[in-house]
Amino acid sequence: MKKKKLAILGSTGSIGTQTLQVVAEHPDLYEVRILTANTQADMLIGQALRFEPDAVVIVDESKYEYVSHALADSPIKVYCGAKSLCEVVAFDTVDVVVTALVGFSGLEPTISAIKAGKQIALANKETLVVAGSLITSLARQHKVSILPVDSEHSAIFQCLVGEGDNKISKLLLTASGGPFRTMTAQEICHATAKHALQHPTWQMGAKITIDSATMMNKGFEVIEAKWLFDISPEQIEVLVHPQSIVHSAVEFCDGTVKAQLGMPDMRLPIQYALSFPKRLPLSGERLDLFKIKNLTFEQPDIKKFPCLGLAYQAIAQGGNMPCILNAANEVANLAFRQGEITYSQICNTLEKTMSSVAFDPTPSLETFLQTDTESRLVAKKIISKQLS
Amino acid sequence: MKKKKLAILGSTGSIGTQTLQVVAEHPDLYEVRILTANTQADMLIGQALRFEPDAVVIVDESKYEYVSHALADSPIKVYCGAKSLCEVVAFDTVDVVVTALVGFSGLEPTISAIKAGKQIALANKETLVVAGSLITSLARQHKVSILPVDSEHSAIFQCLVGEGDNKISKLLLTASGGPFRTMTAQEICHATAKHALQHPTWQMGAKITIDSATMMNKGFEVIEAKWLFDISPEQIEVLVHPQSIVHSAVEFCDGTVKAQLGMPDMRLPIQYALSFPKRLPLSGERLDLFKIKNLTFEQPDIKKFPCLGLAYQAIAQGGNMPCILNAANEVANLAFRQGEITYSQICNTLEKTMSSVAFDPTPSLETFLQTDTESRLVAKKIISKQLS
Repeated sequence: MKKKKLAILGSTGSIGTQTLQVVAEHPDLYEVRILTANTQADMLIGQALRFEPDAVVIVDESKYEYVSHALADSPIKVYCGAKSLCEVVAFDTVDVVVTALVGFSGLEPTISAIKAGKQIALANKETLVVAGSLITSLARQHKVSILPVDSEHSAIFQCLVGEGDNKISKLLLTASGGPFRTMTAQEICHATAKHALQHPTWQMGAKITIDSATMMNKGFEVIEAKWLFDISPEQIEVLVHPQSIVHSAVEFCDGTVKAQLGMPDMRLPIQYALSFPKRLPLSGERLDLFKIKNLTFEQPDIKKFPCLGLAYQAIAQGGNMPCILNAANEVANLAFRQGEITYSQICNTLEKTMSSVAFDPTPSLETFLQTDTESRLVAKKIISKQLS
Repeated sequence: MKKKKLAILGSTGSIGTQTLQVVAEHPDLYEVRILTANTQADMLIGQALRFEPDAVVIVDESKYEYVSHALADSPIKVYCGAKSLCEVVAFDTVDVVVTALVGFSGLEPTISAIKAGKQIALANKETLVVAGSLITSLARQHKVSILPVDSEHSAIFQCLVGEGDNKISKLLLTASGGPFRTMTAQEICHATAKHALQHPTWQMGAKITIDSATMMNKGFEVIEAKWLFDISPEQIEVLVHPQSIVHSAVEFCDGTVKAQLGMPDMRLPIQYALSFPKRLPLSGERLDLFKIKNLTFEQPDIKKFPCLGLAYQAIAQGGNMPCILNAANEVANLAFRQGEITYSQICNTLEKTMSSVAFDPTPSLETFLQTDTESRLVAKKIISKQLS
């Protein structure tokens, strides 16, 4: 079998490093052609020396010399800057682009990869949150498949395999509920980033872990699911399932519910996105329902987690509204992590930004870029006002 | 679309009547060509007048005149006797045979249907328990597909759709645990048939409800699964799941577990066996995990339910041993229902019959027929001795 040639965008992050673990387990099936990192130069150098890609990108231009010097004795080309991401994904040597970038920064490289006809393994949900209509229509146009890496969307995708045109009545999107699930609304108000970063079931990057605590992440996943599976948001139900064993499920028109279960391990959806429709052996702890004993489900508390409601609101409005929401959230998420704002100020910031930035019902890529820039400025202003 | 023409063997039983409900919901897709009943003449007559098949069979020959007379003004042909079942399934007008007979009696009509090239919707698990190797090799030879109607096997079948050659690591066969699940071994000893007939989650016929109480039914399902999915019994794990929501699941080589869930409603697996690979709308209560809240799993207690162990033992020995077990169980099940023996005497009867009847490692159809007859005699003798 011909090896699949991968470009891994964001190779030093949580998804990126786990993607490399999957590649290392199946050197006969996958080879790495491109690795990229934002700022973690040393880790990128180490990965490059081990996996011998054709090229690496260090987005932080100030670290270009450092990386170049370290790889001077190898044939590996070194690029820098965000623009380079859009170029390397289009290289002829690449079959599949794993987009494991964080936030809005994933949008342009993903578009570039789709236009170059590359298959996408999508771990960067913000790309679909911001510009789902643009991305999915481009993918259709260029006959590119977008395979989900998010565990919930991978679960749904796995449940849909072989179901052809069978009608979906709803998607059941599970959520751990995050570290604040059992807190009262009052307690959450005083919660700090340190507490929010202690996720009960998943080991993830800082940004997504905070998004889990606010359930903004789940709201984004609703929007992501809408675009990936071409389904109305009213047909997407969020279930709080603290054990994180049922990764999501699909209800069909006959009442059958198909679910995908497993231990929380991101290597599984990563591997499946690369091996689909085949399944490959994977090491690691197996699900033991005798040990787990109980799977529980509860309704999300939209009052405690208003960000989830904002996501439904943004996607119902459509246009550039989810883009505004995402930009405001990136700013507020960082401000919360830096201890500048409280939990309840995150949602306030998002709401105010959504009502301040100009709405455009039919945005182009240009609009999205402008909306993102403007929304960040507005969100920052709102935060400064709250601080003063 | 051409309508599928059905022969429903055992149309007056629990599965038979629910199959007719499915047909009635989709008169554009299915039509009934054959209906058969064991003894329930009046119900058979009513069904015949409503669904207008080409022919009916009343197995109980003493009721032939009665049924003939009632249908005299219709063009419906009336047959009687068990032999007729083998003839009507082979009629040219039949596409699919729904085998909803009880026990060993399903074997010969199923063989006849397979030899005539009819698709099988199999609700009569005893056919595969008794003669799985014979049935599956005949099905391969005549290019006939056997679609499971049992809810557990339908669940597994649904989880396997689209998975192609992906390697299964194990099947997770769920069991409600039956009415005796929470009793002590001591209490079970004194349990009566009346109590055993109160199944907590499923409404079924009397024979299978008693088999659920002893978990013999789950043991038979292990053997059925072995043959349907060509998997070793050691890879089939029984999970007691009292809510009967997860109907069964499959673990693949990558650790993914796919499960099929739903409210307990036999119409779903019946309909799926008829509509596969399509799904059709189905009325009825939908699964609401917010209402269910908890899904629990526990290990079956093999000491309280030794019949489950006997099934694993019988299939490990192979040959005619599962046939001996089935025949002894049919006799003991009836004797328990009639109040002749106690719960613990059921298993004793099975064990003693298994060690008394001659073992044949490579049985033919003739052997199965002889084994069945002999095992019944032996089981009856064992029961008489226990009574005296």
